[in-house]
Amino acid sequence: MRVKMVVAYDGTNYRGWQVQPNGITIEEVLNRELTALLKEPVTVAGASRTDSGVHSLGNVAVFDTQTKMPADKIAFALNQRLPADIVVQGSCEVPADWHPRYQNSRKTYEYRILNRTFRMPARRFDTYFYHHRLDVERMRQAAAYLEGEHDFKSFCAVGAQVKTTVRTIYACTVERDGDLITIRVTGNGFLYNMVRIIAGTLIQVGGGMRKPEQMPEILAAADRDAAGPTAPACGLTMTGIEYDDEIDC
Amino acid sequence: MRVKMVVAYDGTNYRGWQVQPNGITIEEVLNRELTALLKEPVTVAGASRTDSGVHSLGNVAVFDTQTKMPADKIAFALNQRLPADIVVQGSCEVPADWHPRYQNSRKTYEYRILNRTFRMPARRFDTYFYHHRLDVERMRQAAAYLEGEHDFKSFCAVGAQVKTTVRTIYACTVERDGDLITIRVTGNGFLYNMVRIIAGTLIQVGGGMRKPEQMPEILAAADRDAAGPTAPACGLTMTGIEYDDEIDC
Repeated sequence: MRVKMVVAYDGTNYRGWQVQPNGITIEEVLNRELTALLKEPVTVAGASRTDSGVHSLGNVAVFDTQTKMPADKIAFALNQRLPADIVVQGSCEVPADWHPRYQNSRKTYEYRILNRTFRMPARRFDTYFYHHRLDVERMRQAAAYLEGEHDFKSFCAVGAQVKTTVRTIYACTVERDGDLITIRVTGNGFLYNMVRIIAGTLIQVGGGMRKPEQMPEILAAADRDAAGPTAPACGLTMTGIEYDDEIDC
Repeated sequence: MRVKMVVAYDGTNYRGWQVQPNGITIEEVLNRELTALLKEPVTVAGASRTDSGVHSLGNVAVFDTQTKMPADKIAFALNQRLPADIVVQGSCEVPADWHPRYQNSRKTYEYRILNRTFRMPARRFDTYFYHHRLDVERMRQAAAYLEGEHDFKSFCAVGAQVKTTVRTIYACTVERDGDLITIRVTGNGFLYNMVRIIAGTLIQVGGGMRKPEQMPEILAAADRDAAGPTAPACGLTMTGIEYDDEIDC
């Protein structure tokens, strides 16, 4: 059977999702522990290949298995083996051709900025600390220009290989709760470093270095140099993926 | 001059506040780094000697120094030397006889419970994970019995040496925000393990093992065995101390 899992992780100590030679990754730990648990070679396929240091509340992965363990019990059994910074949030059986990357979905990312005079130890792993006061209203105005279907080439890391840099952003909001600013972006897909470049650009707008009204020309430039810097990975969390189908685990 | 500091820390990797032979403590790190920064022997005196693994957003400490560095700049200079899990939130000069333990204050602690089916990696250091669904309304009813002046001997670790176990709790509230339950207690002082024993008892009430109406008899027993277990340190955060004076840093 094919099993879908929802996976939460603190990415601080990982070299991102995808298996690679230079360090431990989320995918690698899942493959290793599923293989040990199910006593057969298991390879997962993930929806979002999050970067080094990026977190998730609900990335999605599938794998095929011959096990007789009920699909919904696998999450509980696997969590007994996983380290404290990776926790599966549920598992269920899906059709044999269901793949987390090859169908319509709405992915949501949050970029969190701790905007205060002093760092706060408890938030050092899941926020980006930014000392200068940011104007959230300006950031909100700038964010609104990103909603809709656009060519986001200016917000894509140089060298990324993709067929098209056109994506649709369904919503891009900015909220302040005390010292914590959250940029929340929902879209049908994201280019490499896209949310971090959006965050880096909105921070420049919030800090007065750019005007909200400059966003259309940044998009139109279709040039990475037109946008702001790539904000640090630690502030980024993938919060979840909604699929059009009715599968819910 | 005497300098007051407000100190935030993630207590996960410390043996509590107070210097002791069996591991590194917050007080020890502050003494060491202040001594190096100010080039004279410095010893801090703290308001709350928090336990191993307990966190703080605003513990208070004072120290005496001959330095010519302005008191309010010490926080910034010290933070350059401190590890990422200890961050001073401000410093200011206080009268030479001002001591954080010997005057009226209102201390607030929060005990946070992550109450959901699966653990969440991002909250593993600052919450206590509790799987069974807790009834917050019952916990709130029980908490209300603790407000006011009472003998809290039932909520004090056995063996603690204190003149009196009478304390005043100004407010004890319980709130749920999604999966996160926060018990917030403000009082004029706390006995050893008092908030963690309150939390352990309220969890039993929330889980149906005790009734809210049992709280008066638990207090009346004046016996540690009458109350619930001591909830784990990781869920506890001292959030701040208010003093009657006008000093604010």
